[in-house]
Amino acid sequence: MSIVDRVKFDHRGLAVAIAQDAANGEVLMVAFMNRTALEKTLETGLVHYYSRSRDKLWRKGEESGHVQQVRELRLDCDGDAILVSIDQKGVACHEGYRSCFFRHWDGEAWTVDRERALDPAQVYAPKAPST
Amino acid sequence: MSIVDRVKFDHRGLAVAIAQDAANGEVLMVAFMNRTALEKTLETGLVHYYSRSRDKLWRKGEESGHVQQVRELRLDCDGDAILVSIDQKGVACHEGYRSCFFRHWDGEAWTVDRERALDPAQVYAPKAPST
Repeated sequence: MSIVDRVKFDHRGLAVAIAQDAANGEVLMVAFMNRTALEKTLETGLVHYYSRSRDKLWRKGEESGHVQQVRELRLDCDGDAILVSIDQKGVACHEGYRSCFFRHWDGEAWTVDRERALDPAQVYAPKAPST
Repeated sequence: MSIVDRVKFDHRGLAVAIAQDAANGEVLMVAFMNRTALEKTLETGLVHYYSRSRDKLWRKGEESGHVQQVRELRLDCDGDAILVSIDQKGVACHEGYRSCFFRHWDGEAWTVDRERALDPAQVYAPKAPST
């Protein structure tokens, strides 16, 4: 059986993918995978997603170096959502937080209640010009 | 600020919603919320979703009694995914498992590696006829 056989991708060819920190169970981010992303994730041991906004396959951390190493892949009862237990290198969020879920509802507003681990400018530091 | 103000619902009016067990961090299920589902979740303290297949608002556990009591609501950086920390009454999965993610990839297939907590027939026990 191939890993994609039992997965029900939607009309766009996508399934929801949730990355959960293997160390402490924290949910770090949610994105989408298409068939290729799931196959590449399995093959390489590094989480790949499909970016809807950029319309392309995307290896998490390909620019920032903040890769996600796969520990376990789980599938839900409907077959349309994948839960990936991972070791997160650096931070999962492009805004410099460990998790993308850094806001909670405090009764009046969605407020930040997590510490920023990195300056966002550091997450995507400008590369040295190639010579 | 209303709870829906910062949430970016997609073209279908939906956002991904993940239910996580407040007790141990286990991810129990993934579904979708529309505006009304999110508002009702906040108002009642019980998780509501929007069912795409049945095309209606759905209070989790409305038939089975397996309700989800809200402990905390979190929003991701993009504003299009909601993480709900919950107290799960009974089981989250209609197949009788505590979590919908009861299958893992064992290298060759998606195999069940969780114990079923309830017979599915018990989850939706036939109701006594009304008289």
